Amino acid sequence: MLDQSPQARVDAVLAKLEKALASGDIDAAVNLFQEDCYWRDLVTFTWNIRTLEGRDAIGEMLKSQLAAIKPGHFRQDTDEAASDGNGVTEGWFEFETEVARGYGHIRLKNGLIWTLLTTMSELKGHEEPKGFRRPMGAEHGSDPARKTWKEKREAEASELGFTEQPYVVIIGGGQGGIALGARLRQLGVPTIIIEKNERPGDSWRKRYKSLCLHDPVWYDHLPYIPFPENWPVFAPKDKIGDWLEMYTKVMELNYWSSTTCKSASFDETTKEWTVIVERDGREITLKPKQLVLATGMSGKANVPKIKGQDIFKGEQQHSSTHPGPDAYRGKRVVVVGSNNSAHDICAALWEGGADVTMLQRSSTHIVKSDSLMEIGLGDLYSERAVAAGMTTRKADLIFASLPYRILHEFQVPVYNKIREKDAEFYKRLEKAGFMLDFGDDDSGLFMKYLRRGSGYYIDVGACDLVADGRVKLVSGVGIRELSEGGVVLEDGRELPADLIVYATGYGSMNGWAADLISKEVADKVGKCWGLGSDTTKDPGPWEGEQRNMWKPTQQEALWFHGGNLHQSRHYSLYLSLQLKARKEAIPTPVYKIQERHHLS
Amino acid sequence: MLDQSPQARVDAVLAKLEKALASGDIDAAVNLFQEDCYWRDLVTFTWNIRTLEGRDAIGEMLKSQLAAIKPGHFRQDTDEAASDGNGVTEGWFEFETEVARGYGHIRLKNGLIWTLLTTMSELKGHEEPKGFRRPMGAEHGSDPARKTWKEKREAEASELGFTEQPYVVIIGGGQGGIALGARLRQLGVPTIIIEKNERPGDSWRKRYKSLCLHDPVWYDHLPYIPFPENWPVFAPKDKIGDWLEMYTKVMELNYWSSTTCKSASFDETTKEWTVIVERDGREITLKPKQLVLATGMSGKANVPKIKGQDIFKGEQQHSSTHPGPDAYRGKRVVVVGSNNSAHDICAALWEGGADVTMLQRSSTHIVKSDSLMEIGLGDLYSERAVAAGMTTRKADLIFASLPYRILHEFQVPVYNKIREKDAEFYKRLEKAGFMLDFGDDDSGLFMKYLRRGSGYYIDVGACDLVADGRVKLVSGVGIRELSEGGVVLEDGRELPADLIVYATGYGSMNGWAADLISKEVADKVGKCWGLGSDTTKDPGPWEGEQRNMWKPTQQEALWFHGGNLHQSRHYSLYLSLQLKARKEAIPTPVYKIQERHHLS
Repeated sequence: MLDQSPQARVDAVLAKLEKALASGDIDAAVNLFQEDCYWRDLVTFTWNIRTLEGRDAIGEMLKSQLAAIKPGHFRQDTDEAASDGNGVTEGWFEFETEVARGYGHIRLKNGLIWTLLTTMSELKGHEEPKGFRRPMGAEHGSDPARKTWKEKREAEASELGFTEQPYVVIIGGGQGGIALGARLRQLGVPTIIIEKNERPGDSWRKRYKSLCLHDPVWYDHLPYIPFPENWPVFAPKDKIGDWLEMYTKVMELNYWSSTTCKSASFDETTKEWTVIVERDGREITLKPKQLVLATGMSGKANVPKIKGQDIFKGEQQHSSTHPGPDAYRGKRVVVVGSNNSAHDICAALWEGGADVTMLQRSSTHIVKSDSLMEIGLGDLYSERAVAAGMTTRKADLIFASLPYRILHEFQVPVYNKIREKDAEFYKRLEKAGFMLDFGDDDSGLFMKYLRRGSGYYIDVGACDLVADGRVKLVSGVGIRELSEGGVVLEDGRELPADLIVYATGYGSMNGWAADLISKEVADKVGKCWGLGSDTTKDPGPWEGEQRNMWKPTQQEALWFHGGNLHQSRHYSLYLSLQLKARKEAIPTPVYKIQERHHLS
Repeated sequence: MLDQSPQARVDAVLAKLEKALASGDIDAAVNLFQEDCYWRDLVTFTWNIRTLEGRDAIGEMLKSQLAAIKPGHFRQDTDEAASDGNGVTEGWFEFETEVARGYGHIRLKNGLIWTLLTTMSELKGHEEPKGFRRPMGAEHGSDPARKTWKEKREAEASELGFTEQPYVVIIGGGQGGIALGARLRQLGVPTIIIEKNERPGDSWRKRYKSLCLHDPVWYDHLPYIPFPENWPVFAPKDKIGDWLEMYTKVMELNYWSSTTCKSASFDETTKEWTVIVERDGREITLKPKQLVLATGMSGKANVPKIKGQDIFKGEQQHSSTHPGPDAYRGKRVVVVGSNNSAHDICAALWEGGADVTMLQRSSTHIVKSDSLMEIGLGDLYSERAVAAGMTTRKADLIFASLPYRILHEFQVPVYNKIREKDAEFYKRLEKAGFMLDFGDDDSGLFMKYLRRGSGYYIDVGACDLVADGRVKLVSGVGIRELSEGGVVLEDGRELPADLIVYATGYGSMNGWAADLISKEVADKVGKCWGLGSDTTKDPGPWEGEQRNMWKPTQQEALWFHGGNLHQSRHYSLYLSLQLKARKEAIPTPVYKIQERHHLS
């Protein structure tokens, strides 16, 4: 065994796995895994997004799914050599199921499988028209009934939603809805995207003016058209807005802007949604088979209820509606909150000449942008990674291959390194009274994002303002009430204010289902996001995947799509394939549909 | 020698070349070339676009340029291995001059240089902000004077051309002006693009409605943002229009649409242009240092003067203003001409139910699109080439590495193969009376394009209509005059017509200089395009490069840019570097400036 090459070791295990699966020998398949093992499946075996932890869970899944899925043709990806390191052998492979082609990643320890990732690449017979399959464009020959591309696009725009019904309606036309819409168009799934703003990209343009992406460009590509080599590392919001607008046009999406969704209801008999929208003042009823809420993690504003909000004489804004500093030069502003938006808004207000106080109610995880880029993301998403041959697809799959159960173990050392590197910086912040944390288990930013989607700031400069008092900090004390002239703290101090900005985050996405569909459906589906890690704001039980995201929910034909640009890019693939399979009536036996444990 | 690897042979010659050039030993350098040899230089040694043919020409160039250019650091491109075949060894290399970094290609025969290509990649100290040099976007830290990206863009738009003068003005905002504008923006050269239409892309949108690109997608990429994998092989005109529009926005070009250039004149004392434009009805005077005419090879319509044009009662259109077939159902149309536009327009009119006659005055080169793609372009520009690892850059450079003097020798066998493959097709066309040719020396389409930019049709279906008489053909006879009701041929026949479309091509680009600047300047510069091959419509003497394109002309600070998407992409690099060097006052000793032999 030991004198074999890494590739030979991987090939041998894959061959045994294929044989065991082909012969229905579940015990033999399970015995290829070590005791401590994980199989993460994205839609191929489970028609779900599931991580199976341990041999028993794997055996149970195979017992349920194997006969229907009929996997086979496991073979190495000849473009990606297997490798060895730290006692782990890892490699890439292709495989097939009866209806799909898949791609996977495997890690071995001592010749046994430690982690296995299986993902769906495409449905057989429904491959995307790209590369060798790209459309011809010009139709050669002559045909008196020929319609030009433009005539066809115009006909589609005038028919879809009126004389023809879309198969999918996506509510929300931010990066999530747009990326999913692009994939569905390529798969030939008639789709309408509903967006309340006037233009694609407005969900970025309309936010506070200093906003830039907090994730670097390599992490942010959309499907099909990557950002060019000269794209900024952290794109300013208006530039991202323009990109999304052009992307929507070039990808030929049916994007209904200036359109509001009024209500949606599912008819359990006809298996059809009735979605009522108002488009340019006109009410239109859509009848899709599938409804996707892509309204955004940062969609439904969370504004705390505070006594005295009705008597305060200044302005009050949620961070999502704060217009930026221009109107507040010389004014006194209290920003409630200490996460990303709070920091960005405080810094911009200070730059704009306002008198700014940040009100920190609980501890925050801070990581310097440079350190995060270098130490946290650099191996997968950086210019250095690109130069070393890393592709976006491969990076996404490596990222996806680490089971959530143990992901924090990989993250803790990263943040320990960052703490050491930036020790002076953290000391200065603490000295200013800032309450710091690195997550309940010191696993840092990314775990906080996955578990609760909040509780951190990626520092691009605001921390210096807080540390040296240019932005005033009030920390560790709650708000008792608002007075006419400002904020009264629990300790009796009063902060005079002309403006209060609530940078207090957003609610669970099923809140949108309550608003648009019904409280009953929202409660049936339950909380979205979070892993069930039983850490702050992420109650258990353990889920092993993000709740209700990109996969079937307790409400038939209702789906949630969202997250950052990375997730919009990567998970839109799996969601689009699930929707396409249903459109084509391909059997999609879902293994262990999401349970509901929390209402929101 | 023979037992060396191809790379070792290439390395040995490059090392000798470097040594000879470093020591100023021109004889030694020249002796590395075989008798029959070519050195094509794109801006590195000559600050010009020049092919030196034979040892004497190479020696003469080096004598003039070597001391100023100071070349060195010749080294293999470690990503591209040298190779052997048919007695030729070829390889890729990097090198430097005093002010620039270059990239080259070399072919050896029997250890001596047969062809050498030297191209400029970038100017030292003026590298483009991409990859590792890409901008940060978000500016970290805090700064009360901070302006957002949007504010900066808006400020630039309000200042450039008013309180600040552009260094370059480009007249013409089609693909040529846009590609060059994008490169100049990346190089930090303040530029305004003047375009008469309302929107970028309108120069495509406004043409006949069946128009699609005749070149396939792999040949058509713009710089920086390649078309996505799902882009059609032959993009419809409106889709290309939308792409150009989004590209212009995303690349942040200063694009003055709905603007007409009224006049331009160069002050030989101040070395400054005065360019008067009318923008939305308002006259504005621009004072650039450099003026680029990117008005298009297919810009200045060539309408023949025919007796009776004033008495003909129907409509007369040049192909560039023909709106498509919709208004001509049941009408009689005579299309004068038998090249690309004539065929496209005839086919669309036939599809639209018109009674169409094509009037062929002289023979035409026809090549089926499929055959051209497969046999003519497939090794460099195709999905097959992409799958084999061919990049657009490498394809462009291989293309550029073949000296024009011998390019036809490579082309003749290609077209012989096509003639054989499509023999039946050509027979049918000839039987219908269509006059065919393959160029004066049977070298086919691409040589015709380079020499005269006309005389061919890439068949996407219209030929069948002509062959079987659905589009009527009148061939080999000229027009005597127009009558009130139609076209009277030289042989006395009369073709009744409600519409005459002149698909009669375009004039030399210096015609634009006559219109915008003066006849004197147009005549000083002389004819644009063509190689001087002494074949039909390409009079000698031999130039070895395309006249006046992308390089200094007899009129200081006046440049011509144009051609197909491939040329717009590739040659915009060299033109942008020439302009940037002048802006930065980098010495640009031009070797053998273009002579004028023909007025137009």
